[in-house]
Amino acid sequence: METHSINDLKKVAERIKPYIHKTPVLTSLTLNAMTGSQLFFKCDNFQKMGAFKMRGATNALLLLSPANKLQGVATHSSGNFAQALALAARNLRVKAYIVMPEDAPQVKKNAVTGYGAEIIESKPGQKAREEMIEKVLKRTGATFIHSYNNIDVILGNSTATLELLEDYPDLDSIIAPVGGGGLLCGTAIAAKLINPKIEVYAGEPSAADDAFRSIQTGTIQPSVNPNTIADGLRTSLGDITFPIIQKLVKEIICVEEEEIIASMKLIWERMKIIVEPSAAVALAAVFKRPEYFRNKKIGIILSGGNVELSRLPF
Amino acid sequence: METHSINDLKKVAERIKPYIHKTPVLTSLTLNAMTGSQLFFKCDNFQKMGAFKMRGATNALLLLSPANKLQGVATHSSGNFAQALALAARNLRVKAYIVMPEDAPQVKKNAVTGYGAEIIESKPGQKAREEMIEKVLKRTGATFIHSYNNIDVILGNSTATLELLEDYPDLDSIIAPVGGGGLLCGTAIAAKLINPKIEVYAGEPSAADDAFRSIQTGTIQPSVNPNTIADGLRTSLGDITFPIIQKLVKEIICVEEEEIIASMKLIWERMKIIVEPSAAVALAAVFKRPEYFRNKKIGIILSGGNVELSRLPF
Repeated sequence: METHSINDLKKVAERIKPYIHKTPVLTSLTLNAMTGSQLFFKCDNFQKMGAFKMRGATNALLLLSPANKLQGVATHSSGNFAQALALAARNLRVKAYIVMPEDAPQVKKNAVTGYGAEIIESKPGQKAREEMIEKVLKRTGATFIHSYNNIDVILGNSTATLELLEDYPDLDSIIAPVGGGGLLCGTAIAAKLINPKIEVYAGEPSAADDAFRSIQTGTIQPSVNPNTIADGLRTSLGDITFPIIQKLVKEIICVEEEEIIASMKLIWERMKIIVEPSAAVALAAVFKRPEYFRNKKIGIILSGGNVELSRLPF
Repeated sequence: METHSINDLKKVAERIKPYIHKTPVLTSLTLNAMTGSQLFFKCDNFQKMGAFKMRGATNALLLLSPANKLQGVATHSSGNFAQALALAARNLRVKAYIVMPEDAPQVKKNAVTGYGAEIIESKPGQKAREEMIEKVLKRTGATFIHSYNNIDVILGNSTATLELLEDYPDLDSIIAPVGGGGLLCGTAIAAKLINPKIEVYAGEPSAADDAFRSIQTGTIQPSVNPNTIADGLRTSLGDITFPIIQKLVKEIICVEEEEIIASMKLIWERMKIIVEPSAAVALAAVFKRPEYFRNKKIGIILSGGNVELSRLPF
């Protein structure tokens, strides 16, 4: 595992600054009263394209050599990273190739092509998707950017926590959701560099508890048929994210589907902001283990706000 | 019509400050591009209890004499003002009596009793409601606070525009929704006192276009069977609000139900914030008359964010 300094993080933040929002931190007296904690919500649902992924995608693109920029970038994703890479590439005038499963929702495909990226459809499933990306890389000479198992993506993501701790330096704990681990690792790296006493927790759906099982067993466990509404958290850890989580994250707190939906509804109703189910997992973790957080100052990373309004769980 | 000075408004703002939020102003590059305007959204959906009504209710309560405070306050409302008066009264340790129709949704009754107010049920309809409030006033000696046809309520509401123009002094126009006129009058009074060149517009549902018809005819027209999703805008103008609107508001722009819903959906999807249908009416007015607003700086008052998530129009 590489080590980084606070100065490295500040350079990342400076680099991506022209292309991202500094997102606000919101609080809610009602949710504080309900949890017995002081909660500070870092609202990356307000980030460009609606999710923290814009941070990591932008950082990775900005670090490409001029020659690599000319040949473009490629990834496979059916979620927020597809849109993030497409928009970051458009901002930097880099060509982007996005491999998406042919059964991905049309609204997501439209968002990606709307940002000017080229979609290459694959059959559903991890294997077909990986074969297709290999073909695309061979054909185009594009650079592959993994959506989370990439240290430049992770360090880009860490700027959310850097901003949060600039605004609120005295947090006791920070909680992020965990899927592939790109946001959680960014959160943990920034938190521990700024103040090693900050405890970093993850929220994970019990229905996709591969990170929890990976930590328990000490080896990366795959996410098998993850049946969770938190569609951003269905992926498995990678060989870069897993050791960082092992080293820096205190505990992975698993939450049930109805707990995710209840937390999402509370954030919508009480804070009047739109967050996606994956983002609500971190708040659900506070309700799950109130004894960890009572009377403490807790940062909650709200990872994104991209939901289909016609398919809400309430 | 009484006249007021900027100093009067600043005193109102100072008076209510401990009890309300200074709400943020948000922008959206996407909505700017779609409308051809620069839009500045004053987010009173983030106000305490979720609507601007908290401002006016608090100001009216703070101006009561100590003797009147002891006897409590009363109003009739099935909407946001019921909650606003209940919460403002709790903050100031004043007893509040709220007349609500017996068929009001249980969730709204719960909110009011949750703030410690006493609900008195009436048969549905304006007449039954007014008879009941008379009984309550006689029995309790409470002071009646009208939800909009009350200058102290109006001046309280004006602080939203005062804050908006403190943050963005160079707006060309400001648009507020109009129901009974309490928000619109507050908006217009503040805007014209701060800068008489600012043009104040109203958005109104065509399905409840009594304010539009009142301006056309020069006399207050009642709102008859208003069948609009914008449930905060079904009321008629009052004898205090009507002349202020006549004098200070440039035009009332009527919008259709599907235009209200489309604007509401855009705000939810693009800005990731929750607004109620009534709040979306102001944005719908921009889309209705783009030629009025093109290339200009427009303030949009987002009046509230109280919606039932189980009954969304999309």
